[in-house]
Amino acid sequence: MTDIQPQKVYDVVVVGGGPAGLMASLCLTTYGFDILHIDERPCPTTAGRADGIQPRTIEVLRNIGGISTAPIPGGSVVGQSPIAGGGIAKKMISQGVRVYEVAFWDPTPTQKLARTSRAPSCPDFVDVVDNYTLLLHQGLIENAFLDEIETRRTLLPDASPTPRSGLFRPYTLQDCRTLPVNTSDPLSRTHPVECVIEHGSSKAKHVIRSRYLLGCDGAKSHVRRCISGGEIGDGEWKGKITMQGEATDIVWGVLDARVKTNFPDIKYKCLIHSKSEGSIMIIPREANLVRFYVQLQMTEGGKVVSIERDKATQDIVIARAKKIFQPFDLEFGYVDWFSVYQIGQRIASQYTLDHRIFLGGDATHTHSPQAGQGMNISMLDMYSLTWKLNLVMKGLGKPEVLLPSYEHERRGVAEELLKFDGAYSRLFSGRGPDAKHLPGGVDAEKFIQMFKQNAFFTSGCGAIYFANQLNALPGTRLLSGPYKYAFNPRGVKLVAGQRLPTGRVTRVADGNHVRLLQEVKMNGAFRIHIFAGDLEATKPALEGFAAFINSPASFFERHRVNADVRSSIVDGPAAVMNHDDRAKTTHTFNPFFTFLTIVGTHWYNWEIADLPSPLRLYRSQVYGDALCDPHVSEARTNAPLHHKFGIDMQKGAIVVVRPDSYVGAVVELSEDGWLGLNDYFAGFLIEPPKKAKL
Amino acid sequence: MTDIQPQKVYDVVVVGGGPAGLMASLCLTTYGFDILHIDERPCPTTAGRADGIQPRTIEVLRNIGGISTAPIPGGSVVGQSPIAGGGIAKKMISQGVRVYEVAFWDPTPTQKLARTSRAPSCPDFVDVVDNYTLLLHQGLIENAFLDEIETRRTLLPDASPTPRSGLFRPYTLQDCRTLPVNTSDPLSRTHPVECVIEHGSSKAKHVIRSRYLLGCDGAKSHVRRCISGGEIGDGEWKGKITMQGEATDIVWGVLDARVKTNFPDIKYKCLIHSKSEGSIMIIPREANLVRFYVQLQMTEGGKVVSIERDKATQDIVIARAKKIFQPFDLEFGYVDWFSVYQIGQRIASQYTLDHRIFLGGDATHTHSPQAGQGMNISMLDMYSLTWKLNLVMKGLGKPEVLLPSYEHERRGVAEELLKFDGAYSRLFSGRGPDAKHLPGGVDAEKFIQMFKQNAFFTSGCGAIYFANQLNALPGTRLLSGPYKYAFNPRGVKLVAGQRLPTGRVTRVADGNHVRLLQEVKMNGAFRIHIFAGDLEATKPALEGFAAFINSPASFFERHRVNADVRSSIVDGPAAVMNHDDRAKTTHTFNPFFTFLTIVGTHWYNWEIADLPSPLRLYRSQVYGDALCDPHVSEARTNAPLHHKFGIDMQKGAIVVVRPDSYVGAVVELSEDGWLGLNDYFAGFLIEPPKKAKL
Repeated sequence: MTDIQPQKVYDVVVVGGGPAGLMASLCLTTYGFDILHIDERPCPTTAGRADGIQPRTIEVLRNIGGISTAPIPGGSVVGQSPIAGGGIAKKMISQGVRVYEVAFWDPTPTQKLARTSRAPSCPDFVDVVDNYTLLLHQGLIENAFLDEIETRRTLLPDASPTPRSGLFRPYTLQDCRTLPVNTSDPLSRTHPVECVIEHGSSKAKHVIRSRYLLGCDGAKSHVRRCISGGEIGDGEWKGKITMQGEATDIVWGVLDARVKTNFPDIKYKCLIHSKSEGSIMIIPREANLVRFYVQLQMTEGGKVVSIERDKATQDIVIARAKKIFQPFDLEFGYVDWFSVYQIGQRIASQYTLDHRIFLGGDATHTHSPQAGQGMNISMLDMYSLTWKLNLVMKGLGKPEVLLPSYEHERRGVAEELLKFDGAYSRLFSGRGPDAKHLPGGVDAEKFIQMFKQNAFFTSGCGAIYFANQLNALPGTRLLSGPYKYAFNPRGVKLVAGQRLPTGRVTRVADGNHVRLLQEVKMNGAFRIHIFAGDLEATKPALEGFAAFINSPASFFERHRVNADVRSSIVDGPAAVMNHDDRAKTTHTFNPFFTFLTIVGTHWYNWEIADLPSPLRLYRSQVYGDALCDPHVSEARTNAPLHHKFGIDMQKGAIVVVRPDSYVGAVVELSEDGWLGLNDYFAGFLIEPPKKAKL
Repeated sequence: MTDIQPQKVYDVVVVGGGPAGLMASLCLTTYGFDILHIDERPCPTTAGRADGIQPRTIEVLRNIGGISTAPIPGGSVVGQSPIAGGGIAKKMISQGVRVYEVAFWDPTPTQKLARTSRAPSCPDFVDVVDNYTLLLHQGLIENAFLDEIETRRTLLPDASPTPRSGLFRPYTLQDCRTLPVNTSDPLSRTHPVECVIEHGSSKAKHVIRSRYLLGCDGAKSHVRRCISGGEIGDGEWKGKITMQGEATDIVWGVLDARVKTNFPDIKYKCLIHSKSEGSIMIIPREANLVRFYVQLQMTEGGKVVSIERDKATQDIVIARAKKIFQPFDLEFGYVDWFSVYQIGQRIASQYTLDHRIFLGGDATHTHSPQAGQGMNISMLDMYSLTWKLNLVMKGLGKPEVLLPSYEHERRGVAEELLKFDGAYSRLFSGRGPDAKHLPGGVDAEKFIQMFKQNAFFTSGCGAIYFANQLNALPGTRLLSGPYKYAFNPRGVKLVAGQRLPTGRVTRVADGNHVRLLQEVKMNGAFRIHIFAGDLEATKPALEGFAAFINSPASFFERHRVNADVRSSIVDGPAAVMNHDDRAKTTHTFNPFFTFLTIVGTHWYNWEIADLPSPLRLYRSQVYGDALCDPHVSEARTNAPLHHKFGIDMQKGAIVVVRPDSYVGAVVELSEDGWLGLNDYFAGFLIEPPKKAKL
């Protein structure tokens, strides 16, 4: 289709055009990098495969936002963010269907199959705006990414030419490795990764050099094989990197079809256990389709009989489904997609080679599709890795701290998932140690209980990171350092290593009601939230903090790179909603930090100009806290968000939110607090040699 | 640009391609009619003009929805609604900016200009989802309509060929009239309207026949002149139809520009009165523009001096604006649009000729732009007329009742607007009888009070219709008829002639959280809401109502036209979310009525199948009432929507909502109630001669 040839040198090579690879490409493009993205498939997914997007993933996609391509009358506006309009989240939402509720169907003493329980897909206590699972086939998800990548590439100043959406296909990775530093190879210091790729049809080979390489090439990852250094074994690469865990002999058929049925819950996510014919999970889908996960196993003469994987045809799967659905009628029409899989839970023994080549997504963890987690965690792996790469490649992040934190944080989440998924799928398949009546039986009650208990995790909001340099929690050096008492003030409910919960505030610059979480779109910057409480009480502390920020000793001034290095192609913190741009000259923005000031005193009673500089210069990021929040019991209280976050109105607090909207550190609004933040940032950011400020 | 020529005969001719005409075209296209739409301008608006969309208008646009053109895997699905995705409302929302708050600036004893008050643009007591004014220039609004019309035209089975979006331009209306019935002219009975149109450049003339003609051609309406039969007078047509009301000598300049300023509220809607330089209203706009309404009048030597209209240049307007803004700096950059206007309040003495030619929008009412109402009321004029035309043209509506109700209802709203606008703009211009210090002064307090008091009306939610055959209120024959006691049951807060308020419910077929108001998209059908309360108490009444609907004596069976007549091209009530389509054979849908059943008993405790037929056949329109509603003080009460609407859980109620989402009738859930509904519908619907049912 295209004659465009890959270049020889890139910032990053991304292998794999599925959701994880596309997330990597979208984020790295946003951060302004020149990447080579390859996929071995000649075209995107057209049907089936992964189909469930969880609440936290929707929140992330909303935060990535969308670039507007609408022409601007009178030409572009300095400081105007190109992010506007719906973005990929809204595109996917408009194309998919939603699951709010799950129904559990089991045999009962009186009925062959009856609804024995229900549960919200995302219960009220999970504090998230999109409190549902969004369902649409993987191709629609991929296309939303591809369109947005294409749009963002137009904003890249010096990107290499690529096919549409930056994706070279069909190209396979032949080999990849890191090269030692070699004085005869000047690239070896900056671009030590070498890979060989091959065109799928012409078989033309290209040798590529890059700074990093990301293996998002799925469960049978070629990247993993290459960096593992082993040979192909019995379904497993016997090299340095092994996939640890277990496979089961339980085979499942999966298909997307249109059906006619008198089963009342056909539009729900249902977990159905028959008495002796096995289990089914159904999920409603776009275009009136239904996704069926059908267990290919039954009881015959008191014995469990499995259908072998290579004998599981579509017709057999449909016949099983009809059996399990009895006494309900189930008639199959158009089938959109069909596949067979075997459940297992495995995790890669390591995620990286030399912190130059990284694995993510299915290349690092595989599990059952039933919990609807795989694609979500895979995308979020890359969402998490790329902002760290951004800091490192821009010369601001310490690679030795930031890059290992990727595996530290994401392996923790993957392990949690595998633990849950193993127990869940064993129980669902009716074969777990807790199943009541072997063979073929299932402990419905226990299964339902487990489902409900795990809703926080499966929503994606419960993916928690543990103490490390990025998450100022007990156990880190910060919590035993000189400012230890300033971290995590008593009563504050925001926790480092957890996502910032939702909250609506009033943007004072224009009076709009907005969600604080979505105010700064993904742009690579740390978001310093100053909860200012009652202005009368906190005014001296606010002024102290402002003076500190303006001083050369602050993290804001210490961790500053060349003025021409942007944090991303979308709006940096300089894009303030400020018609009075003369004010800016008193402050030099640092695109890797931005300030959001949230005041508890009713916003009718003060002016943005009352805030000390530089806080008031971030005009579009000054907020009043006076909107009703249904998650606050005293909903109409003054300052409901302060209340919800447990922030003392007399004391305030500073909350650092990382570029991935995880809380990084919570400190007092006090000198010890901001000195503590200096310590926090010094833990993983470089202090570049001082230059004359522009 | 195009060679497509108009045909000779159409259902409806729409004159004018502004917001009113586009709304007419979009609705009539949705109802499936073949229309001729002409505009004298060669291309759509590119900047400026009307720019404010009020909350109720957004609600209506959401209800119109959007047609999805995405391909459906496996071909289209019977009964699947083509409406999906964002639609025109979301498109406009993504392109515009929002005003939540208004600021009032006045001289004070100590300051030349100070913020003296604030008010929410749409206060909490206005129960509407989009509680803001949406601002974007008229061209963007027109384009959203044009795109949606183009998409909908693809679903019209036998539409005449037209240019893109169905709009012939540039074409001017030369003449229009109604012809008497004439046996030698067979069209005279069905298509008695004749008009002559002329191509703007080729001057080619066409004589067109149609059933109806709609004049949406603005304040200087040609249609009005034609049907008025008079000659052009001094700014006024001295014919049968006169524009009644008054003009003032107050001249205003209006411009859209980018500015630099240290005025803190530049991103707010502000109403600014200077001490002696006149007034300004500013409104924030898309693309960082600001709309300025500048009063061209000042005080010189204690005397009010006006700038004449033809001398008001852009430079003069800018100079005035700078003066009024003092002591704040105001520097103008790019100017996107500029115009001058004179305030007046006028209303047409009649809206129609023979109920065949109708006027609407600015052709019937003109007023000041400051309250941001004109475009809204104009669009809603046509939204209101077209569903009535739909019923009449499909042979189901009584023209002698439905067509006069257009003027009855819309004139009422226009008169209310003019009354408010007159007082408001006099006060705003500082010249009203209540102004404190003439000349040039203004009673700021009174003005602010008036602004706040009128928020319900200006949101569009307070546009109330009075008693007529369509609105079962005291004063109608229904309320003195045999079933009078069944209407408007005690305690119920829903009122005929007012819009149905918002409320969230759970759609039982798929467990989705939805807004009841938006569940049936604009499709020409009456929405019969059965509030079923506590199922144990209401079961007999529900069964009685269901049996009544199934009986030949019911309005549902009496007002039934040929089976091939659809209510619209979008989903009729047959588009039920029903995988079990065998159930449908027991019931013949009538596309002009649809049933929504809202049950107060928690939906976990009953099944759709427990409801009597036909209610249960409308599977996708059965709801549980168990979602928290912030507008209900006992937010977590059982059945919050029943509570909010004042519906007795033991008794239930039936609420008829017209195709424009206005409540038409509220009756008891009892035999008297449904017999009352028979009376209600018989008032304006025809009982076509019985035919054998299909």
